[in-house]
Amino acid sequence: MKFEIAAVRTAYVTFVVGLVAVVAIAQSDPLPSWNDTGPKKAITAFVERVIKEGGSDFIPVNERIATFDNDGTLWVEQPIYTQFAFAFDRVKSLAPQYPEWKSEQPFKALLENDQKTLLASGEAGLMKIMAASHTGMSTDEFTAIVSQWLATAKHPRFQRPYTECVYQPMLELMAYLRSNGFKTYIVSGGGVEFMRPWAEKVYGIPPEQIVGSSVKEKYELPNGQPVLARLPEIDFIDDGPGKPVGINKFIGRKPIAAFGNSDGDQQMLEWVASGKQSLMLIVRHTDGDREYAYDRRSAVGKLDKALDEALAKGWIVVDMKEDWKSIFPPAITSGQ
Amino acid sequence: MKFEIAAVRTAYVTFVVGLVAVVAIAQSDPLPSWNDTGPKKAITAFVERVIKEGGSDFIPVNERIATFDNDGTLWVEQPIYTQFAFAFDRVKSLAPQYPEWKSEQPFKALLENDQKTLLASGEAGLMKIMAASHTGMSTDEFTAIVSQWLATAKHPRFQRPYTECVYQPMLELMAYLRSNGFKTYIVSGGGVEFMRPWAEKVYGIPPEQIVGSSVKEKYELPNGQPVLARLPEIDFIDDGPGKPVGINKFIGRKPIAAFGNSDGDQQMLEWVASGKQSLMLIVRHTDGDREYAYDRRSAVGKLDKALDEALAKGWIVVDMKEDWKSIFPPAITSGQ
Repeated sequence: MKFEIAAVRTAYVTFVVGLVAVVAIAQSDPLPSWNDTGPKKAITAFVERVIKEGGSDFIPVNERIATFDNDGTLWVEQPIYTQFAFAFDRVKSLAPQYPEWKSEQPFKALLENDQKTLLASGEAGLMKIMAASHTGMSTDEFTAIVSQWLATAKHPRFQRPYTECVYQPMLELMAYLRSNGFKTYIVSGGGVEFMRPWAEKVYGIPPEQIVGSSVKEKYELPNGQPVLARLPEIDFIDDGPGKPVGINKFIGRKPIAAFGNSDGDQQMLEWVASGKQSLMLIVRHTDGDREYAYDRRSAVGKLDKALDEALAKGWIVVDMKEDWKSIFPPAITSGQ
Repeated sequence: MKFEIAAVRTAYVTFVVGLVAVVAIAQSDPLPSWNDTGPKKAITAFVERVIKEGGSDFIPVNERIATFDNDGTLWVEQPIYTQFAFAFDRVKSLAPQYPEWKSEQPFKALLENDQKTLLASGEAGLMKIMAASHTGMSTDEFTAIVSQWLATAKHPRFQRPYTECVYQPMLELMAYLRSNGFKTYIVSGGGVEFMRPWAEKVYGIPPEQIVGSSVKEKYELPNGQPVLARLPEIDFIDDGPGKPVGINKFIGRKPIAAFGNSDGDQQMLEWVASGKQSLMLIVRHTDGDREYAYDRRSAVGKLDKALDEALAKGWIVVDMKEDWKSIFPPAITSGQ
């Protein structure tokens, strides 16, 4: 009898301990802002598969590379890319030093808020604005300029700093991957030096894990103090077919997971899909109430061909409205 | 009396424990191949200073970046750069497919071992050889070609694989820095894709921590399978003033320690010297018996202006003959 009582007690203890463990796991859901729909299940199933030592799909820690597009994948890209908002504000603040801009396009249109003429200036016009706002200073000076702007600028609709217009589910996803040994990278068409000043604080991604577009830089020694001067010349465009090139250039390994939201991410996802283990995910902007609803017809962040390929090949497509419980993190600086 | 005995015992125990600790530290010297001369003392003093929490010189882990030149700093660069040895062997092995090379310079000179004519072809000639040997294939194919060559090629003097012609003291130094939270990078004039296939195994430096020169690459989809094609066009030269540019491009932080051996490293060391905490070290090749004795007059790895600056500014100068107890690791594959 004694034996039986002990056995019952052991079974009971095992049951209770098991129950506590289940509750603990449920409580520590690493992706609380994701609804329990397909994408969340596919992500966690993938991670559990590749981290399982001895499993046939096991990937060693040093090969667990995950790459994230930034605009529209990690933070809001509407109504215009944040980097363009920065460029426009910068040109306006510099205008007093350049009186000729009052009559010179595309600066005239920008200063007069004449969007139609500004748009008509096309890529050549945009390049002039980017050169005027992004080059002609040292890398240290540019970092300070970006940081100052981000400290005060606000998103026109959400009225919070741009660095708080980031997607809470994606913050959770990056943290979840890192806690499972993944190295998270940004691979963005945006400027690498525009992202580095804040990405470590906002995303937990250090400067050396940011791949982006860049201008040429030149080493100079004015007064014996070395600086890197930012030149008005494109060095690299990290977009579309440039993304796999950028990944190989900066990382030198094929990632096993990639996250994007537009046609500019299509080749990055294809590149990752050709690996031995791979997860491809596209964020689809479907929530006009909480964020923006766009894709196939949008000028910014157009998602058309990449969506066709995603649907044809069974890549994960996140429907923001259906799959995300919340969009943004709680406000930090916009309250009070 | 009891109190006094206890106090004596405590003092004795403290003394013995202290002695054991001292012996343990001596036994676990992290730099056993370095003589106890100035460079070793300066290195360990620097590391102890920047890792001391609460100290005025403390540097947080995420900013502990150390950059190493490769040729002549981590491995032998005489009588010619290893990458050139690879290029020459590759051209010779490709020659049967290119009968026109028998009459076309600089290929003719190379195939006939006519060094004088080969040298006379200058940079333009060298570029033809580099393009023929390094481009026109996919990145995956190039990786396989480099790996195959390294598996069989031997250094002409030391008769061991090139990957064993690495400096034991520098292997120890990199491991020592990493054990103190440093992230070690290669920043080399050599080709980044020539180094990546073996640097993780040989140096413990992963592909994503290698900065080097590169050719342009293009994303292609032959038969629906994505590849990156290596094009016969220079993308970036990571040498001289290009090294601080490369560091900023790929790492985005100023390193706090840098290691080089030639004038091609001068600007990297200057760049690091302009930081708040910094260690600059130059390896000087002074040991003709165990390695090579060269510097100011050498065509390969010339050390002239950088040596002047190092001596003027008190950067650490390693005299290989005086400061290194051993040069190479024990043979792995060349013995039994």
